[in-house]
Amino acid sequence: MNQFASLINKTLDSQVYPKQPRGLYEPIAYTLSGGGKRLRPSLMLLCYSLYKTDFDTVLPAAIGLETYHNHTLLHDDLMDSAEVRRGMPTVHRKWNANTAILSGDTMLIQAVTKVNECQCPRKDEVMELFLKTCREVCEGQQYDMNFESRTDVSIDEYIEMIRLKTAVLVACAAKMGGMIANAPEVECEMLYSFAEKVGLAFQLQDDYLDVYGDPLVFGKKIGGDILCGKKTLLLINAFNLSNEKQRNELHRLIESKDIPDAEKIAGVTKIYNDLHIPEISNEMISAYYDDARNIYETLPLPEHVKEPLWQWAIDLLGRNY
Amino acid sequence: MNQFASLINKTLDSQVYPKQPRGLYEPIAYTLSGGGKRLRPSLMLLCYSLYKTDFDTVLPAAIGLETYHNHTLLHDDLMDSAEVRRGMPTVHRKWNANTAILSGDTMLIQAVTKVNECQCPRKDEVMELFLKTCREVCEGQQYDMNFESRTDVSIDEYIEMIRLKTAVLVACAAKMGGMIANAPEVECEMLYSFAEKVGLAFQLQDDYLDVYGDPLVFGKKIGGDILCGKKTLLLINAFNLSNEKQRNELHRLIESKDIPDAEKIAGVTKIYNDLHIPEISNEMISAYYDDARNIYETLPLPEHVKEPLWQWAIDLLGRNY
Repeated sequence: MNQFASLINKTLDSQVYPKQPRGLYEPIAYTLSGGGKRLRPSLMLLCYSLYKTDFDTVLPAAIGLETYHNHTLLHDDLMDSAEVRRGMPTVHRKWNANTAILSGDTMLIQAVTKVNECQCPRKDEVMELFLKTCREVCEGQQYDMNFESRTDVSIDEYIEMIRLKTAVLVACAAKMGGMIANAPEVECEMLYSFAEKVGLAFQLQDDYLDVYGDPLVFGKKIGGDILCGKKTLLLINAFNLSNEKQRNELHRLIESKDIPDAEKIAGVTKIYNDLHIPEISNEMISAYYDDARNIYETLPLPEHVKEPLWQWAIDLLGRNY
Repeated sequence: MNQFASLINKTLDSQVYPKQPRGLYEPIAYTLSGGGKRLRPSLMLLCYSLYKTDFDTVLPAAIGLETYHNHTLLHDDLMDSAEVRRGMPTVHRKWNANTAILSGDTMLIQAVTKVNECQCPRKDEVMELFLKTCREVCEGQQYDMNFESRTDVSIDEYIEMIRLKTAVLVACAAKMGGMIANAPEVECEMLYSFAEKVGLAFQLQDDYLDVYGDPLVFGKKIGGDILCGKKTLLLINAFNLSNEKQRNELHRLIESKDIPDAEKIAGVTKIYNDLHIPEISNEMISAYYDDARNIYETLPLPEHVKEPLWQWAIDLLGRNY
């Protein structure tokens, strides 16, 4: 994966922005040079590389997709009042809210402009898929905001939210790689579904690891979601399966401002364990992982050609189920 | 012009939005059904009609341009903390800031999607012109915000700001109409320049009429720009031409919070009159008007065909210089 991410970073670093107005373009350069795993554009290059090796055709679209992803982070951080992103102050903190709005808008325009630079026979379809995906990502963000004030979110609603908010953009990246390489449509669809399932497994696993992960491997403090009362796969499962006493205790622990952090985390985790939430959640994650594996196996490419795709899934999910 | 605006309104009214998530799509329908003159898409249809009469080919792009314009109003209103737009509460007042950000983003995606639906031989160029224009409009808004905290804005800077913020989108509308009708490139360029000059004349005239207009014809209270200390063509000209005593008096009048409104307006207007600002400003407006007329006259179309274009300029500017 590293070679693809390096190529993306090299291309991003060589981008030239207009000098004026500085207040518009500096925050864009700041956001795009802020690092990140370049997961989506790297996957696009990887899927393209299953069919072709000349990356010039796919690079503009890959940069467009990464620019779009960073546009969503910039505006989401403003909407969530987040202070820090990748260890740096967010744009609305370093500058102000208006700068975040307008530079974010300009990034969205820049993202579409890069995708529109794509020169390939299926250009129209590439653009349609990209714009449809952008719309879905907005829908996902809206559902996510709606869920904050709801306590009756179902598992199906939750999964549809994370599918829209995160999985479709990963899936779009994979399919665009295939489309731009002029791969057969049926294989492009398989790349989409494969990446969508891996994306869902990754997000659901993130919820699981927040409570049950090894903090050294996970890279974040354990229990963060519990402390901020986030509706995760675990909490929604727990609300659905708990009896009245357990449900009241969950509400008390999550909503209280007086209970110490460690006690909150221990209390919620005990209820999760009593209800077998880790096993149930792991089964759901494994189901998406298995779906992805099945799609991978039916992808009609020689094993030595397609193998990097499975390696990507293992690297992302950090385990071989 | 009315037939074109009616066609735009009819098309906008027949648009179907996804039912869910309501919090995302209701503000978009609210914004696009809020009326307005439909100036830009009507001009696109008018320019198209100089060459062709089948409007199906041009309508998606016209709707896209109007959707983009309304996206900018939605986000600008949020950035300016405006309470009312076209007699209705702005989106961030009726809902909230996050709704305005996310629905505005979705409108921008929808705008590009509509322009991308355009089926014409010059589709790629149409999209490139549209995206370039969107970027310029963002630059214009950034300059406008920058100018609020500056007192040394030059006339050239001011005109470049209003060119980017408003004239290029009117010009883009005119040129897209010609391009989609497959008009010769030289005529498309003339349509662009013509509309750009009319757009500049219109914006500068708006500054003039704010002080010297007939309130019954102008439709707004006289002196509004003076009361909010807005840097207009008149004020910038006055700062450039005033002696030290007059400049101090201008600063005192504009910055004071104690002077009654009527006294402020009378005081600033007296300085404007002493400095012959109305005559100087009118000459600048007339120069753009004359530029537009010259371009119109060289447009190689029969007079009876192109005459509606000049009628449009007269209607917009409300006078025949």
